[in-house]
Amino acid sequence: MEFKVNSKELEKLLTKIIPAVPTRTPMSILENFLFEIKDGSLTINATDLEISMKSSINIVSEENVSIVVPAKLTHDILKSLGDTTVYFEITQNGKLNLKTDNGEYSISYLDAQEFPEIPTFPTNADDIYEITMNGLELKYALDITSFAMSKEEMRPAMMGTYLQFESEGLRFVATDGHRLVNLLKKNVKADISDQYVIPEKAISVLQKILDEKDIKIFLSKTHMSFKLNDIELITRLIGQKYPDYKSVIPLENEFDLKLKTKDIHTAIKRMMLFSSTSSTKRVKFAITENNLEISAEDIDMGNSGKESVMCEYNGNPIEIGFNSQYVNDILSHLTSEKEIIFKLHSATKAVIIVPSESKENQELMMLVMPVRLNN
Amino acid sequence: MEFKVNSKELEKLLTKIIPAVPTRTPMSILENFLFEIKDGSLTINATDLEISMKSSINIVSEENVSIVVPAKLTHDILKSLGDTTVYFEITQNGKLNLKTDNGEYSISYLDAQEFPEIPTFPTNADDIYEITMNGLELKYALDITSFAMSKEEMRPAMMGTYLQFESEGLRFVATDGHRLVNLLKKNVKADISDQYVIPEKAISVLQKILDEKDIKIFLSKTHMSFKLNDIELITRLIGQKYPDYKSVIPLENEFDLKLKTKDIHTAIKRMMLFSSTSSTKRVKFAITENNLEISAEDIDMGNSGKESVMCEYNGNPIEIGFNSQYVNDILSHLTSEKEIIFKLHSATKAVIIVPSESKENQELMMLVMPVRLNN
Repeated sequence: MEFKVNSKELEKLLTKIIPAVPTRTPMSILENFLFEIKDGSLTINATDLEISMKSSINIVSEENVSIVVPAKLTHDILKSLGDTTVYFEITQNGKLNLKTDNGEYSISYLDAQEFPEIPTFPTNADDIYEITMNGLELKYALDITSFAMSKEEMRPAMMGTYLQFESEGLRFVATDGHRLVNLLKKNVKADISDQYVIPEKAISVLQKILDEKDIKIFLSKTHMSFKLNDIELITRLIGQKYPDYKSVIPLENEFDLKLKTKDIHTAIKRMMLFSSTSSTKRVKFAITENNLEISAEDIDMGNSGKESVMCEYNGNPIEIGFNSQYVNDILSHLTSEKEIIFKLHSATKAVIIVPSESKENQELMMLVMPVRLNN
Repeated sequence: MEFKVNSKELEKLLTKIIPAVPTRTPMSILENFLFEIKDGSLTINATDLEISMKSSINIVSEENVSIVVPAKLTHDILKSLGDTTVYFEITQNGKLNLKTDNGEYSISYLDAQEFPEIPTFPTNADDIYEITMNGLELKYALDITSFAMSKEEMRPAMMGTYLQFESEGLRFVATDGHRLVNLLKKNVKADISDQYVIPEKAISVLQKILDEKDIKIFLSKTHMSFKLNDIELITRLIGQKYPDYKSVIPLENEFDLKLKTKDIHTAIKRMMLFSSTSSTKRVKFAITENNLEISAEDIDMGNSGKESVMCEYNGNPIEIGFNSQYVNDILSHLTSEKEIIFKLHSATKAVIIVPSESKENQELMMLVMPVRLNN
């Protein structure tokens, strides 16, 4: 059977779908696209068994057929062609032939039956909801929370980002036990009591494909589906219960340390040059009314640094240690905030970091655990 | 003792010198800069024992002292500071202290005696010559030849680029036995009969630092010195005799295959998608009067490609195989040439590739060995 497509149109489609193709997998069949030609439409599918992506273009074809083709090679060939018409031919003897004015490329395909079952959204299940979000708002929410997800496989739920609909809005939470991000988007409301934990892979793909357009999100107890323009991304949800993150958030951190975000961020980056060799990458904050002295020491190499950062502080003088990498991660996600406030209680209690001015329609809170100072 | 410098001025200097610092070395002392303070001048030195680089800035200092400081850390600290005055203090107890308005950084230094002997130019030797070249012309010559240098340690001379002064000009040659580049710069002449083989490290550093300014080159039998603005790069030369490259250049390749560089280059890049798994990365050229058919086959995966490229050819029809990676490397360095000519004789004899129009003041010739076709 034969059909034709424009090279750039198909390349664009494959570029959107290929993030779902795993780059290192023991199941080599997953390194393929599933091409489904049906009723004048070519649908491209890819999956790593946790997420799946698909998108379609219209073609003129009289037959229906499904084949499995190597994802990277097919994508690379389309990328390497200029803007041209490509004639596709699927032969009976297992070859997908691509013909252009000057060239002819032959790729071995596999039977569609060899492709594993693709995660699909359970449209017939109970408790299915649909919401719509602006693509950039969802991207912001995922960007600012997901860096704090755990990479430890010991606690699978913490390897994802937690979504909960509350009466005030949609809450996003991510934590690895050392730091936590807690974002409430007040303009996204729905009467949904279920909770959802989205795995990392789905989040990293969403971060790549989200744009200013609205995105439709379908939620079930086991899967979420994201419909963006002509692409559908389906992800399994992490089935484990998310830990009770609220219990680690201190309610009475009465001391406020107000800082210019840029001042503390550049200082932390310099301190990381001295703290990088120790296991906790420790930086010390010595805080007084108008001065934050931050310091770090590389004991093995005999190097050290200290700096003064202007601040406003309303508490008792305190010395507290942090992992400089964790503080830097947090500050890297707050660069759009001019000033931030560290809310403290003592050298051993979790510290809360908030922007000094809230953005419209949202509440953002980050948390970092201190590390012990051996004085 | 104390002195002060502008952070950006010193950062710029360190950025120029740090390419000479080896990143992976069993001799950790080489990961340092040697700071020499003498008579109102701070000279920064770095070496990997094959090359050395140095540059100076003026400072106000009453004492003379030399210390050894960690290169990356010192460079990183200077980079991380804004544009500011940095006060340096060298203490008796082994600390280099850097002070700015807000910060203080302390780095352990080592004694200058611990630094190994730096390669220096033997100014008192016989047969010392000096030439001047435009920086961009030298960069072009190194860029277009050095990719063909060998990476095999079996034949050390071929791991460098060969320079020979001839009556027509300065010749640059690089080869790994599979391909060869031979460039004659006609506007660089000197009455020098010695031959020079520059090691790869010196070439890669020169490629980074050369600009449009003139560069002074000093040549001795064992070392070369390059003086560019305020930097001096000294390199040991490879002492082994360069192989007789002329003997592999065929003189009677009577068949000319003329191609548009872009046409053949884009076609080769597509063929590489199919030739990449075989050991010789083989692509086949089937050449007739007006048509070059190029093809490649991935036998393991059952994929293949072929294309027609317009050409002008004045020889007998011929089929010849090449390593597509080698042809691509050559074409990647000829993108500024609109048309190129492959000069052929037979399927087993070396093929010469030349631009169809010579640039002013130079002769450029590349050579690639064919690979066997198993028909």
